[in-house]
Amino acid sequence: MSPDHYPSKLLEAAISEFAGLPGIGRKTALRLVLHLLKQNEADVERFSGAMLRLRKEVRHCVVCHNISDSEVCTICSDQKRDHGTICVVENIRDVMSIENTRQFPGVYHVLGGIISPMDGTGPGDLNIESLVEKVSEGGIEEVILALSTTMEGDTTNFYIYRKLNEYPITISTIARGVAVGDELEYADEITLGRSIVNRTLFEASFTNKKAY
Amino acid sequence: MSPDHYPSKLLEAAISEFAGLPGIGRKTALRLVLHLLKQNEADVERFSGAMLRLRKEVRHCVVCHNISDSEVCTICSDQKRDHGTICVVENIRDVMSIENTRQFPGVYHVLGGIISPMDGTGPGDLNIESLVEKVSEGGIEEVILALSTTMEGDTTNFYIYRKLNEYPITISTIARGVAVGDELEYADEITLGRSIVNRTLFEASFTNKKAY
Repeated sequence: MSPDHYPSKLLEAAISEFAGLPGIGRKTALRLVLHLLKQNEADVERFSGAMLRLRKEVRHCVVCHNISDSEVCTICSDQKRDHGTICVVENIRDVMSIENTRQFPGVYHVLGGIISPMDGTGPGDLNIESLVEKVSEGGIEEVILALSTTMEGDTTNFYIYRKLNEYPITISTIARGVAVGDELEYADEITLGRSIVNRTLFEASFTNKKAY
Repeated sequence: MSPDHYPSKLLEAAISEFAGLPGIGRKTALRLVLHLLKQNEADVERFSGAMLRLRKEVRHCVVCHNISDSEVCTICSDQKRDHGTICVVENIRDVMSIENTRQFPGVYHVLGGIISPMDGTGPGDLNIESLVEKVSEGGIEEVILALSTTMEGDTTNFYIYRKLNEYPITISTIARGVAVGDELEYADEITLGRSIVNRTLFEASFTNKKAY
């Protein structure tokens, strides 16, 4: 395809910025920019101001590394939560996903990534030391590893497991199995196999309790 | 679905802004905002600056109403183009699409919309008067109507046709027919019917000339 003809350098610059975002092509970028162009100046100011303020003012919770408006995030400073159970996740998005389930009363620890030699991410690039430190200080009963079911996730799980194994805590991982609403015949063999090995007591399946 | 739990008001504000753009849901907005959050502060400044500058500084060409960085756009000020042939389009995007074909040596006239009683857009909301004025001043040989093949497009075509009919110019519309690369059996009947009625000389089909 020939390069696009832009009637304005300002337009081209704005499109290039949008097209630099993940999953946004130049056609979508053009549509979004033309939409912004039709808005009031105040609306566009609010749009760009929100991005800039977020980038400049947002902080990371000193306890769990989740993003936060204050030094300690709202979850870590909530005394009603179970501070003895830590759920280890890859990123902020995972915290939000788990919070949306309303099934987890504990606190989080955000690694800020996953061990991935392919992407050049080693254990030293992640918030693992602060997790070990937190556990070593005592008061923690369980660490739940809630990472992706990928090679990188498994590697990271195992690395953390070895670091925490010496402490008197329970280390668990989230259940792998057939998704709720899925039909058995469409589940892949590994998932189905795991769901049989890690079966739960039938009674537990509706009381939301673990089988063991 | 329960409302999302955002760990930060700044994050929530930025997500809401992105989610206000057409075709962007809250999940995509979150992904885009987290991407911006990982960039350098200078990159985010450039991003929001580009939007703001575009909105504040962009102008519309006084001749054709296309967006432009100067009073007269680069197309209208290009002396190598055929200023006697005006292609009437709905919006800026259409100008870019036609420019990308590299098949049109003339100039444009951007209506800024299409007659649509459903959306409350009447002829008075569009740049039609300035087109009539341009034609009435003379020097125009042909006006090509390049609007969408919809009821609104046809209505607008007809309205403009009646306004320009008294002047000694050719008024044409872009060809409707089976798209290049399409198989006949998948073309709808109306398109196929039009493509037979408005057939072109075989010779013309490879010399890019009109049949009449």
